[in-house]
Amino acid sequence: MSYQQIDSRRLDTTFAALSDPTRRAILGRLAKGETTVSELAKPFKMSQPAISKHLKVLERAGLISYSQIAQSRPRKLEVKPLKEASVWLEEFRRFWELSFGRLDSLLEELKIEGEQKKGKSQKSNKTTKGKKNAK
Amino acid sequence: MSYQQIDSRRLDTTFAALSDPTRRAILGRLAKGETTVSELAKPFKMSQPAISKHLKVLERAGLISYSQIAQSRPRKLEVKPLKEASVWLEEFRRFWELSFGRLDSLLEELKIEGEQKKGKSQKSNKTTKGKKNAK
Repeated sequence: MSYQQIDSRRLDTTFAALSDPTRRAILGRLAKGETTVSELAKPFKMSQPAISKHLKVLERAGLISYSQIAQSRPRKLEVKPLKEASVWLEEFRRFWELSFGRLDSLLEELKIEGEQKKGKSQKSNKTTKGKKNAK
Repeated sequence: MSYQQIDSRRLDTTFAALSDPTRRAILGRLAKGETTVSELAKPFKMSQPAISKHLKVLERAGLISYSQIAQSRPRKLEVKPLKEASVWLEEFRRFWELSFGRLDSLLEELKIEGEQKKGKSQKSNKTTKGKKNAK
């Protein structure tokens, strides 16, 4: 999948759906396997209608689906929109890799510089001590 | 950066900021280099106040920053929140890799099966033709 193939309206609904911690937690739970609404509601201090509202947002965004056959209609994670969101973000990867790469090399430089200074001061200490001993 | 180190509230504002096509386009433009608000507004059929509103959302989400010194206050891309959003999504990577991997192997199987059938039917055609010629 390339950057150009991503549907912009789908990105709108995916990112909007992901902007809530409960909805992200629901997706995290569904990543462990499909489950029922009552099971999904358990870890949250929320009423089942409140959870159902979040589930509707996720369903509309195509991030979850459910089986019509079973009475409990277990919810299932749908990863395609997540993949698209990830592909969109990947376009910016070179920026954080560049900036963190730069930071790494800067820290490395400072470390070497620090060690060199330490080395010099130890040498000069030895010289001073040597001179002192010679006195 | 690990999954656990990500601030959940920051993910809320990052994903909310990314849920709009104009804001995503602004980030895409800033990926090419820092620029002024009037330059950012040019490709959009929008008033400058409307663009400024979007910029405020991006600023509050920490996705862009601006220089206080220059009169034009050029805007600059800040990638850290994008990286965090990407790290969050990476947790689901194994799912799309698995599902697409499965699809690939299924397609490969069908291809091989198809070729085998084709091969068999060509052989049987040859046999039939051979028989016909013998008659």
